[in-house]
Amino acid sequence: MRRRVGVWLFGARGSVATTTIAGAAALDHGAPAAGVVTELPDFSSAGLVPTDQLVFGGHDVVETPLSKQVERLTAGGVLPAGLGTLITAELAEAERNITLLPGNRNAAEGGDLPVGAVAHHPPDPQPGQFGVVRRMAEDIRAFRLRYDLEHVVAINVASTEAPYEVDVDSAAELRMALGERDVLPPSSLGALAAFEAGAAYMDFTPSTSIKPEAVREWAIEKGLPYGGQDAKTGETLVKSVLAPMFVHRALPVHAWSGTNLLGGGDGATLADPRAAESKGVSKERGLSEMLGDVAGEVHIDYVDPMGDWKTAWDHVVFSGFLGVRMTLQFTWQGCDSALAAPLVLDLARLSALALERKHVGAMPFLGFYFKDPIESSEHALARQYDALVRWVREC
Amino acid sequence: MRRRVGVWLFGARGSVATTTIAGAAALDHGAPAAGVVTELPDFSSAGLVPTDQLVFGGHDVVETPLSKQVERLTAGGVLPAGLGTLITAELAEAERNITLLPGNRNAAEGGDLPVGAVAHHPPDPQPGQFGVVRRMAEDIRAFRLRYDLEHVVAINVASTEAPYEVDVDSAAELRMALGERDVLPPSSLGALAAFEAGAAYMDFTPSTSIKPEAVREWAIEKGLPYGGQDAKTGETLVKSVLAPMFVHRALPVHAWSGTNLLGGGDGATLADPRAAESKGVSKERGLSEMLGDVAGEVHIDYVDPMGDWKTAWDHVVFSGFLGVRMTLQFTWQGCDSALAAPLVLDLARLSALALERKHVGAMPFLGFYFKDPIESSEHALARQYDALVRWVREC
Amino acid sequence: MRRRVGVWLFGARGSVATTTIAGAAALDHGAPAAGVVTELPDFSSAGLVPTDQLVFGGHDVVETPLSKQVERLTAGGVLPAGLGTLITAELAEAERNITLLPGNRNAAEGGDLPVGAVAHHPPDPQPGQFGVVRRMAEDIRAFRLRYDLEHVVAINVASTEAPYEVDVDSAAELRMALGERDVLPPSSLGALAAFEAGAAYMDFTPSTSIKPEAVREWAIEKGLPYGGQDAKTGETLVKSVLAPMFVHRALPVHAWSGTNLLGGGDGATLADPRAAESKGVSKERGLSEMLGDVAGEVHIDYVDPMGDWKTAWDHVVFSGFLGVRMTLQFTWQGCDSALAAPLVLDLARLSALALERKHVGAMPFLGFYFKDPIESSEHALARQYDALVRWVREC
Amino acid sequence: MRRRVGVWLFGARGSVATTTIAGAAALDHGAPAAGVVTELPDFSSAGLVPTDQLVFGGHDVVETPLSKQVERLTAGGVLPAGLGTLITAELAEAERNITLLPGNRNAAEGGDLPVGAVAHHPPDPQPGQFGVVRRMAEDIRAFRLRYDLEHVVAINVASTEAPYEVDVDSAAELRMALGERDVLPPSSLGALAAFEAGAAYMDFTPSTSIKPEAVREWAIEKGLPYGGQDAKTGETLVKSVLAPMFVHRALPVHAWSGTNLLGGGDGATLADPRAAESKGVSKERGLSEMLGDVAGEVHIDYVDPMGDWKTAWDHVVFSGFLGVRMTLQFTWQGCDSALAAPLVLDLARLSALALERKHVGAMPFLGFYFKDPIESSEHALARQYDALVRWVREC
Ligand SMILES: NC(=O)c1ccc[n+]([C@@H]2O[C@H](COP(=O)([O-])OP(=O)(O)OC[C@H]3O[C@@H](n4cnc5c(N)ncnc54)[C@H](O)[C@@H]3O)[C@@H](O)[C@H]2O)c1
Ligand SMILES: NC(=O)c1ccc[n+]([C@@H]2O[C@H](COP(=O)([O-])OP(=O)(O)OC[C@H]3O[C@@H](n4cnc5c(N)ncnc54)[C@H](O)[C@@H]3O)[C@@H](O)[C@H]2O)c1
Ligand SMILES: NC(=O)c1ccc[n+]([C@@H]2O[C@H](COP(=O)([O-])OP(=O)(O)OC[C@H]3O[C@@H](n4cnc5c(N)ncnc54)[C@H](O)[C@@H]3O)[C@@H](O)[C@H]2O)c1
Ligand SMILES: NC(=O)c1ccc[n+]([C@@H]2O[C@H](COP(=O)([O-])OP(=O)(O)OC[C@H]3O[C@@H](n4cnc5c(N)ncnc54)[C@H](O)[C@@H]3O)[C@@H](O)[C@H]2O)c1
Ligand code: NA
Ligand code: NA
Repeated sequence: MRRRVGVWLFGARGSVATTTIAGAAALDHGAPAAGVVTELPDFSSAGLVPTDQLVFGGHDVVETPLSKQVERLTAGGVLPAGLGTLITAELAEAERNITLLPGNRNAAEGGDLPVGAVAHHPPDPQPGQFGVVRRMAEDIRAFRLRYDLEHVVAINVASTEAPYEVDVDSAAELRMALGERDVLPPSSLGALAAFEAGAAYMDFTPSTSIKPEAVREWAIEKGLPYGGQDAKTGETLVKSVLAPMFVHRALPVHAWSGTNLLGGGDGATLADPRAAESKGVSKERGLSEMLGDVAGEVHIDYVDPMGDWKTAWDHVVFSGFLGVRMTLQFTWQGCDSALAAPLVLDLARLSALALERKHVGAMPFLGFYFKDPIESSEHALARQYDALVRWVREC
Repeated sequence: MRRRVGVWLFGARGSVATTTIAGAAALDHGAPAAGVVTELPDFSSAGLVPTDQLVFGGHDVVETPLSKQVERLTAGGVLPAGLGTLITAELAEAERNITLLPGNRNAAEGGDLPVGAVAHHPPDPQPGQFGVVRRMAEDIRAFRLRYDLEHVVAINVASTEAPYEVDVDSAAELRMALGERDVLPPSSLGALAAFEAGAAYMDFTPSTSIKPEAVREWAIEKGLPYGGQDAKTGETLVKSVLAPMFVHRALPVHAWSGTNLLGGGDGATLADPRAAESKGVSKERGLSEMLGDVAGEVHIDYVDPMGDWKTAWDHVVFSGFLGVRMTLQFTWQGCDSALAAPLVLDLARLSALALERKHVGAMPFLGFYFKDPIESSEHALARQYDALVRWVREC
Repeated sequence: MRRRVGVWLFGARGSVATTTIAGAAALDHGAPAAGVVTELPDFSSAGLVPTDQLVFGGHDVVETPLSKQVERLTAGGVLPAGLGTLITAELAEAERNITLLPGNRNAAEGGDLPVGAVAHHPPDPQPGQFGVVRRMAEDIRAFRLRYDLEHVVAINVASTEAPYEVDVDSAAELRMALGERDVLPPSSLGALAAFEAGAAYMDFTPSTSIKPEAVREWAIEKGLPYGGQDAKTGETLVKSVLAPMFVHRALPVHAWSGTNLLGGGDGATLADPRAAESKGVSKERGLSEMLGDVAGEVHIDYVDPMGDWKTAWDHVVFSGFLGVRMTLQFTWQGCDSALAAPLVLDLARLSALALERKHVGAMPFLGFYFKDPIESSEHALARQYDALVRWVREC
Repeated sequence: MRRRVGVWLFGARGSVATTTIAGAAALDHGAPAAGVVTELPDFSSAGLVPTDQLVFGGHDVVETPLSKQVERLTAGGVLPAGLGTLITAELAEAERNITLLPGNRNAAEGGDLPVGAVAHHPPDPQPGQFGVVRRMAEDIRAFRLRYDLEHVVAINVASTEAPYEVDVDSAAELRMALGERDVLPPSSLGALAAFEAGAAYMDFTPSTSIKPEAVREWAIEKGLPYGGQDAKTGETLVKSVLAPMFVHRALPVHAWSGTNLLGGGDGATLADPRAAESKGVSKERGLSEMLGDVAGEVHIDYVDPMGDWKTAWDHVVFSGFLGVRMTLQFTWQGCDSALAAPLVLDLARLSALALERKHVGAMPFLGFYFKDPIESSEHALARQYDALVRWVREC
């Protein structure tokens, strides 16, 4: 019998993680798999791991039980009423697999460490961050053993960090520095821990994680795949089909402005201008690669009363024949976690396939899922979809 | 030296036709070719006829001079101020190539024939419509001779007709019936005239034209290409990228509602519910082929104060993971003629290439341009674009 | 001690009625009175009956229990989760006060009578409709006795009827005709029943009810007040502040177009073009009285997947100085029943005050609540509010 | 015969000023007075000065001729084609009445003084700003004499200044300080100059001008009226009718977010965050006074390709009965100068009436026109309109 696949979530108690864990359980209970791309016929021949063979665990810096989060998300209309009681067993099991990263909370959590920063396990007596990576990797390895998992995929769904300057250039330099000083932000420590534990690593966020060359080299030395960054679920998703439309129709775009209103935990984090900066950079990359230089700003506003819902308004000025000015506006009203969770399942299944196929290094064929696709400059959704299907059917 | 290509426009005095003729002249005077798809690098190796080698002529049922139409379109902000005086010579030349289809006006023109109906040249003494076709074909042949044209492409940009029931099943039956009675609406007579004159035929409208099997057989017997129908310039264009987005992301769409507000000549025609019916059918085909059955209606409202401008509002209800309902709305504010005219130039150039390549019958690879692509069921814009580029590069 | 006030609802099992009954109960349990205008400080000195002194009863043509409706509205996000169990007692009490109007269902209910038509109680052996009115009035009188009510207010929240031609001109003629033939639609029979039972009558719908002069005379003969019609809760509410803005700023409005998308029972009824006609007429009255003749249509589309939610999009073309064209668009996304129910409470309290003050005939000072305010041509919301407050404070 | 009224514009070469001057001339040539509120019947009995009796002059820091500005505004669709040639005489006359404030340009004009700062006439040999005020007042007095004007009204339509800290508390202190040091920003110097020249003063902008108590005292000592600030022409205008709607309907508003996209000179100025700060403060005052504390931000984005056009998108979260969340969104697409210019004419006529009536001090009854109405806390448009009409009809 086929062994199960482990999904290790950094940020395991957040909205996206909770919706993923609860949603996978709901699917087992017969809920329809809306939003799970890998359930489309195009993917049926690939032998992807069934979603009921996924086991969940992870790290977080807060202790709020998953069942509480399920309650909150149900009140907010993200999860269907009654789901919580149906899936008590599954929640309890995932709960047992979540390790608290102890120590101070970051600012977004009401603590006094900078946003995204975290002190792990028993405060480390030695200088440097190697101990942290080692203990996090041990957590992942223990998870693998507990279930005798075939593969483990680690996915970063933790709060978006502020940008972080990493000053080492290679895996070798990094190894040295890690024993001596604080050289990486938490997201990158998570990536290293994943690689140390033989897991694939996917970044659902725009944090530093696998951005540094040195971290990527580390993955390659271990023979492991990685992918990201920053899942494309709402405004950017729509942009990724509208921008190619203007390009294909030879209609010059002069300005593209956007305002995103959102509440929830992610909104609270992005109210911190430094975290918003990371997000802004990843949001804007696609547009400028598709359209060149266009005027217009992108705002991300924290609007507490919107809860887990997001509204994005985009305004595009373009011109037609002989320079006549025209506009396109759109308003997207979505529930981010409900859009994100099925993609986490997709990424888990596809990363497991990559491990199966012994793929090493970046997975640019997953660009379909990301605002800032690693080692790829294709942002047009239709092309990204075709590339994904081609890879899946490859062997 | 390469000989020129003739573009014969049915509806040669309408907004689209006038903007096309004026726009082509403006390009010769250095205006930028925004909206002309065949000017994109993807098309540069195909040896398409340069736009300054296109000559314009056509049929219409009204006598308003092109220069008057240019004035009207300038006042409405469709054409740039000052263009009229710059291109007097070009307008005058096209003016000489336009033949009035005499007789009664249709209802949209203030006459008493049904919308789209028209009595041609000297009222025909014989029964049937063969005489009409013959005389229209002669007009086109004379145009070809006048300029010693390499190819002639006939494009239907006349007012949208009401649906019309054609009761003959083959070219043979049609030939017989044409000598005896009124069997076809004006658009189909135009198509036959084009084929009789050895011209390619493109339908920019949702009229009957090449819908009947018998008319298509006629083209094939003459060894000529045809294409259409109903150019995709605004709301439907946007739909053709948004619908695939939902499909690729496995997000079920429950309802898609649309309201189109427009003034101008096209708006006045579509205020007639029978003409609107033709338009409605072609607008909805793509959506249902892409998404299956979804709730929602499409309205086309004539709003005189909007002049040549159109505003479309679309509202889409879809669901995400576990059935959470979300919405996407868009508002498109465009100037239809300025979106349509460059596509007429594209279709002329591409049809000339098809004649060059001796392509016979339907041109499904032009689906990129149409709401109701003939002999094709691909409606996703990105795929249509790729298919078009593939065909262009074929040889 | 002050005696209680009875609220008799025609359409007592519909969405508006159920939300009203459940909402009044929720207020007793401490829910905040959002949307209840008569709870504003401007109304505090008027000695209005407290909402916990209202008792509910009514007529309907279906038997679906209120508790089932509460479940449905809770699932649709109209009522808060958990409310149903909190208010079981109140629902059961109202349930006991609802009388079934027996006989065939109307078309909107799956029966074979026309929309809005209904056969009452034991089918009447005699010709004419007097028996129906008498028996309905008895139901209301019995309700008054059961609770020893101070006043009874009858409010029509039944399905919108098709327009109905009434061919009698005075109360006297009507009295005669009622004994002989079918002369009135159900809504007007309800109004007469109310007057016979000494109740005030308010029409929340655009049905015929009190439109005929003869029905109004009847009220005046009985010395009773009446008011209506068609509560202004969404799109029309917004219009009633935007239109005066254009007027006050001397900005000419050229076109006002609107599209309303809605599901639910009201949506299903309005999918019948005859019912929609009644609604359309009342929706458009205010605009034309405020702005004169403007272009543009109003669409009401039934979109089943929207459930009890409504989205309205309005597009306004106006001009500024020297004729420059500009536009204003708005999108209203509301839950109709949650907007309507608090207004039903307001109207009950204000009508009880009118009874108290022995007001006879039309209540134009309630125009604040209606799209088609009876015997008033003031549609500007701010003025209507001021007029209402003035009346309330009068004595 | 009645003598004429002079309108002295600070910022006389800007878009608002130019549109005002050109528009007044167009009215003389028969253009319809759309947007001129004082042309409504409500104002006809007040004996307001006819618009053809207004004479224009003013100060600016740039020398671009009015005719050039008219050309630019015509190309941008603000002024109708052909107007320029029709009104050459009127433009030339106004041109003669505009005095250059010499010296350095402010940053928004490409100079090196801070935004809004300006050095006047021959650089002043003495310390302090008294000389500046004196010379500006002389310009205004000369204008009055040149035309033997009945009244002069000075209106500030210059670029919005950054906030400015004024450290004197009374007219007396101010008089002292003015002879010694730089104590006021240009807008306040303009106000003093107006008062010195016996003119009324209106502030169309959110600059410092009459904010300091000391400046207002100065007006009162001179027995003159003043009013402002920051004309309400677009987004804020709409807010001023929507916010009262929510209040009157007892619907709690939780969040109100807004994004304003604009190009043009005003947009360029507001791209400077310090100028934007002044604007933001005035924009938000009304909302918070009407609704209390609500979440949400207001963005003002400079989007160069939008030229003189502005698009504002507002998103409002409110709740209905029992806390159900609903939203209202609106999109306003207007041409700011075409909305502003007729209001400048209104303010000129109404201020002349105030002078006629010897009104001294603040004119709170003009709140109808302003985002930040001086000495008034009424922001609801309908009430403001009624107050204005009451004042006009007073005597
Ligand atoms: N929801 C979407 O559509 C979407 C799309 C793209 C990207 N994202 C990204 O996904 C991430 C999660 O979003 P969310 O809505 O679940 O946010 P959330 O705030 O609800 O959850 C984040 C979780 O991460 C935890 N966390 C913070 N720092 C940590 C650390 N150093 N190690 C481990 N856990 C840590 C927090 O305690 C919290 O439980 C965000 O970065 C967001 O930007 C979400
Ligand atoms: N503009 C767009 O974006 C767009 C997009 C898709 C389709 N179309 C279609 O293109 C057509 C033209 O649009 P338009 O805006 O130019 O309309 P229009 O009303 O300005 O022009 C139509 C012209 O056709 C002429 N005409 C009518 N009956 C005729 C006949 N039997 N023979 C010859 N001429 C005839 C009319 O006199 C008129 O000059 C319409 O059918 C429209 O639906 C336009
Ligand atoms: N909800 C709003 O915002 C709003 C605003 C204005 C007007 N209205 C009007 O209020 C009415 C009720 O709306 P709703 O959403 O509750 O509709 P609904 O369809 O949910 O309820 C209507 C009820 O009336 C009953 N009914 C039908 N014919 C009847 C008859 N002859 N006698 C007694 N009962 C009868 C039906 O069985 C049903 O229970 C509609 O006419 C609607 O147009 C509602
Ligand atoms: N247009 C509207 O709807 C509207 C609404 C409210 C407020 N306003 C305000 O009106 C003002 C004018 O707007 P605009 O669009 O005409 O801007 P603009 O940039 O076109 O014009 C401003 C003019 O002021 C001049 N100026 C700058 N500093 C000056 C000084 N110290 N003294 C005299 N002139 C000076 C500039 O040279 C320029 O000619 C702005 O402050 C704007 O915020 C405009
Ligand atoms: Na696409
Ligand atoms: Na108002």
